[in-house]
Amino acid sequence: MPPAESLAGDYYRGKQVMVTGGLGFIGSNLARRLVELGAAVVVVDALIPNFGGNRENLAGFEDRLKIHIVNLSEAKILAALVTGIDVVFNLAGQVSHLDSMSDPLTDLEANARAQIVLLEACRQFAPQARVAFASTRQIYGKPAYWPVDERHPLHPVDVNGIHKMAAEAYHTLYHEVYGLWTVSLRLTNTYGPRMRVMDARQTFLGLWLRRALEDQPLEVWGGGQQRDLTYVDDVVEAFLCAVANPRTAGGVYNLGGCPPVRLTELAQTLIGIAGGGTILTKEFPAARKRIDIGDYYADDRRFRAATGWAPKVMLAEGLERSVAYYRERLGAYV
Amino acid sequence: MPPAESLAGDYYRGKQVMVTGGLGFIGSNLARRLVELGAAVVVVDALIPNFGGNRENLAGFEDRLKIHIVNLSEAKILAALVTGIDVVFNLAGQVSHLDSMSDPLTDLEANARAQIVLLEACRQFAPQARVAFASTRQIYGKPAYWPVDERHPLHPVDVNGIHKMAAEAYHTLYHEVYGLWTVSLRLTNTYGPRMRVMDARQTFLGLWLRRALEDQPLEVWGGGQQRDLTYVDDVVEAFLCAVANPRTAGGVYNLGGCPPVRLTELAQTLIGIAGGGTILTKEFPAARKRIDIGDYYADDRRFRAATGWAPKVMLAEGLERSVAYYRERLGAYV
Repeated sequence: MPPAESLAGDYYRGKQVMVTGGLGFIGSNLARRLVELGAAVVVVDALIPNFGGNRENLAGFEDRLKIHIVNLSEAKILAALVTGIDVVFNLAGQVSHLDSMSDPLTDLEANARAQIVLLEACRQFAPQARVAFASTRQIYGKPAYWPVDERHPLHPVDVNGIHKMAAEAYHTLYHEVYGLWTVSLRLTNTYGPRMRVMDARQTFLGLWLRRALEDQPLEVWGGGQQRDLTYVDDVVEAFLCAVANPRTAGGVYNLGGCPPVRLTELAQTLIGIAGGGTILTKEFPAARKRIDIGDYYADDRRFRAATGWAPKVMLAEGLERSVAYYRERLGAYV
Repeated sequence: MPPAESLAGDYYRGKQVMVTGGLGFIGSNLARRLVELGAAVVVVDALIPNFGGNRENLAGFEDRLKIHIVNLSEAKILAALVTGIDVVFNLAGQVSHLDSMSDPLTDLEANARAQIVLLEACRQFAPQARVAFASTRQIYGKPAYWPVDERHPLHPVDVNGIHKMAAEAYHTLYHEVYGLWTVSLRLTNTYGPRMRVMDARQTFLGLWLRRALEDQPLEVWGGGQQRDLTYVDDVVEAFLCAVANPRTAGGVYNLGGCPPVRLTELAQTLIGIAGGGTILTKEFPAARKRIDIGDYYADDRRFRAATGWAPKVMLAEGLERSVAYYRERLGAYV
C-alpha cells in the first residue's frame, strides 16, 4: 500500500532527518512516516525510564532507520550526529507534570539543558537545518479565555510547563539571533498508537485505554472539563507541514484537533469502543488539583491558514484505531 | 546618624534575613541597609568571576553580618543556611546578556538550576520564609508599547532573559502550588554605588562612569534610545517594602524609576557631573544589535499602588552620589 498523501509532498524524499525522542509516542510515529516518505531517518532517544521511549514503537523498522541511544546533553556525540542533517524534529523530553514537581532538576536537565545543547549543536554543525520543536499547551496554564490562541499569556502551572516555555523560547531565540530555521508547535492532548498506556505520565487517555482493555475502572477526576484531542497521525502530518512550509520559519503555532469533548463523555466513548471498563468518578486529589487547568481547547487558525493543515481523524475513528493497536500489543506496553 | 525612614518601618528588626548575591551590587546595598534596620543578615554569594560579587562591597560591614561563599546549587549547605530564616532576598545570578549567549549552560546553572535548589530548600526547610526575587525588564524583550506594564507579552531576546523568565515563574509557581510566600520585582536599569564599573556586564552605565572618571571616551551605541533608571537606594527600599507588605504575596511587579532619558542625554549629564570623559557615538555592533531592545520604560503603578513606594533619588543626584563613591574607590573596582 503506498503511503497516504502528505501536504508536504515530496519534501522529505532523500532528506537526512533526525527525530529526537524517536522511540517515544509522537517521535516513533513521525519516524515511521518519514521512512515511508523516503527520508533517511536518524532516531535519537535516551530511553530514560518513564520518559516514554519504548523499542516496541519502532518494531519492524529497525533496519529502515538508524537508532542512537544517546542523551541530548552529550554535546560531542550530538555534534557528530547533527552534521549533515537537513531536518530535526525535536520531540525529546520529560513529559510528566507530577514528576516535574517531585524532581524539578531532572526535568530541567531534559527539557532545558538538553535543548540548549541540541540547539548549540545545530547552530555550529548544522546551521542550514530546519528544526521543529514539540511545545505544549501546558505553557498557557489555566486558560483565561477559550479557545486559547497564541496571544494568551503564558502562565505555566508546573515545573514541566516552565521548562517547555523556556525550551520553546530558546528555539525562537536561535532563529532571531542566529538565523537558525525553527518552528514550534504547541500541542494539545495527543493520542493514538504508541502512546504510553502504562500510567498517566504522558496522557490520562493512555491509562484509560489500558483500563478499558483490562475491563477495569477508569478514574475520571472531575469529568466536566473540556479538552480537544489530536490523533497522532494528524500531529505527525502537522510537523511534516510545518517544516516543509517556507512561511512558518521562526513561528510558534497552536495545534488543536477535533472539537472539544468533556472528559466523562470521552471516557464513555472509549468504553463503548473498547467494550470494557467502567467509569469511576473521583474528586481531584490535592496534588493534582493545584496543577489542573480546567477547560482547554485551542484556536489553531493561524497554523491552518499558514499550512492548509486540518485534522483528518475524528475522535471515534482515532479511538477505534488506538484500541485495535493495543488490543494486539498491550503486553509490550505495560 | 540614624538610618533614614523606611516604609517597611520596624519590620526587619530582629528578623533573620538571607541575601543571595549579597556581595553583588544591589545585594550588598540591601545587606548594609538591613543591618542598619536591625536585621540579622546572612549573605550568600558564590563570588563567581564576572558575576558581580566583590568583597569591597561589604567593606566595613564584615563584623556586622555573616558572609558565606557558597554556590546556591549546593543543596545541602543551602538547606542548613535557610533553616530559621525569615526573609530571603534572592538576588544571585549571572547578569551579562552577552555572556549568556556565548555560554548558555553557565547561565542556565546560575539563573535556573540554582533557583530551583534555593526554592526547594525554602519549601522544605523554611516554609514560612518570605522570598523576594530580582526579576528584570529583560524578559519583555523589545517593547511593543510604552510604558511597559506587567501584561506586556514576554519575549526575551537573549538566553539570560529566558532563564530570568523561568526563575520568576518558579517563584510564582512555588507560591501557587506550595503556598510559599514569594514576590518578584522586574527591575529596570539600576545604578549607584557598588555597581560593576569594570565592564558593561552589569550595566552600560557602570562602564560609562569609569570612563568619565578616567577622562576617556564613553561609547554610546545609537544614543536615541530611552531608558528609565532607578537609583540603587530606591531599589533597596522597593525590596524592603515588597516583603513587608501583606498585599504583595505571590505578586509580580514592574519597578520603574525616574522619567525616561535618552542615552546621549544621560552620557552628557554624567560627563558634566564627573568633569571628564567624551562621547563617542557608535553604530551598534552586530552581536549587540540583535539583542538590543530599543526604548524601554516601565509602568510601575501597580507596585506604587500596592506599597506606597516611589523613587526618591532623581537622576542628577544619583549620578552625583555614584561619581563621588567611585572617585574615592575606583581602584577597588577595576
